Amino acid sequence: MMTTEIKALTFDVFGTVVDWRGSILAELNALGRAQGISENWDAFVEQWRQGFRQGQADVRAGKLPWTNMASIHRKKLDELLVEYGIHNLTEEEITRLNTAWYRLKPWQDTIPGLTRLKKKYILATLSNGDMPGLVNLSKFAVLPWDCIFSVDMFKHFKPARATYIGACELLGLPPEQVMMVAAHNYDLKAAQSFRMKTGFVLRAHEFGPQQTVDLKPEGEWDVVVQDLEELAAVMGT
Amino acid sequence: MMTTEIKALTFDVFGTVVDWRGSILAELNALGRAQGISENWDAFVEQWRQGFRQGQADVRAGKLPWTNMASIHRKKLDELLVEYGIHNLTEEEITRLNTAWYRLKPWQDTIPGLTRLKKKYILATLSNGDMPGLVNLSKFAVLPWDCIFSVDMFKHFKPARATYIGACELLGLPPEQVMMVAAHNYDLKAAQSFRMKTGFVLRAHEFGPQQTVDLKPEGEWDVVVQDLEELAAVMGT
Repeated sequence: MMTTEIKALTFDVFGTVVDWRGSILAELNALGRAQGISENWDAFVEQWRQGFRQGQADVRAGKLPWTNMASIHRKKLDELLVEYGIHNLTEEEITRLNTAWYRLKPWQDTIPGLTRLKKKYILATLSNGDMPGLVNLSKFAVLPWDCIFSVDMFKHFKPARATYIGACELLGLPPEQVMMVAAHNYDLKAAQSFRMKTGFVLRAHEFGPQQTVDLKPEGEWDVVVQDLEELAAVMGT
Repeated sequence: MMTTEIKALTFDVFGTVVDWRGSILAELNALGRAQGISENWDAFVEQWRQGFRQGQADVRAGKLPWTNMASIHRKKLDELLVEYGIHNLTEEEITRLNTAWYRLKPWQDTIPGLTRLKKKYILATLSNGDMPGLVNLSKFAVLPWDCIFSVDMFKHFKPARATYIGACELLGLPPEQVMMVAAHNYDLKAAQSFRMKTGFVLRAHEFGPQQTVDLKPEGEWDVVVQDLEELAAVMGT
């Protein structure tokens, strides 16, 4: 791979750049302590995330009209609160809990890695997150993007072609000059099929200590790294 | 106006945030010296900008399909080079000249003003510039945006409704919570008609020493300031 040809990097965000599971768990635990609720929050957060996966599948299958991450999360959260018998939250508290997805901590290597990469490359998100969420999250976590692309702009979730090609077109670059960076093989597989370059970042604990998926590259990715600081080094920054 | 209700500011870029005329003139003068070409560059740059205004009008009138700023600029530049009898530029030099619109200097108050405003508000562009141009320009000039909106995303130029409402929707905010900031009355007039808040910034020399337009507010704008540092102060940052 000629890194000199690459002009921009587009990043998956949830899992690749920020630790959603650890951050959401911390919010749920804090809420539980404050409200005197004791639950299996590990299971709660896994079901919540699974609800988002199901929502995406329903949109893809045409069972749902376009619905973004915040709306899918909120619907699932309402269901989970009933399922877990949590009835004492105000609307304001529920809204605040749903926007916990805007208050996620970057992995330790994220800020130093992105800061180095930004000197040489255009850095953008390309995330299945909703645009308001990505903007607020990036401000909260001080993520140094040059620009933010959300699937809200394309009304399709990754791995739809419209998202990858849409981002490259907005950058004014051929896909060959843009590298998709993700901790998820499915994302890179799609990006590669549309001729983007691919960078795999290992996030072995994204889904917790029992993680079974995405523990290794499952394709001929252009770059495979342990974290974003290693990516910065490999990309010559 | 309750500034506490405002969550985001969307900025016009060319003229409001960066000095396009002075920057382009400097590039043309440097090119002229290097190539031994002596022309009335003031007239050249005015005709170039006028070409963009005409291109927008043609797109609005349906005479042209959607064509972004970079493409309109390039077409007009090619015409101007013929008109001025400048035949000795290589394709690379012409391309470089057209991308002079990505190498513009911020006004002196821009960076300090935006840096202060960013602490309290989401800052976005909402510009008739093309997206690749805005991304590269923002990187070049180190403009501290939270996100970049270009009319490329909406396939309409300002003052079309789709641009203002599209930006507010992507921010997930009602128009009342977003302030359009511009040095141009036409832009604020449209934004206000769609219920956005409005901030007028006086840029008395955007069009050079003979400027006759936008020398004063021509509407009931929520805020009128001399520069972006004053805006930061008025907005409580």
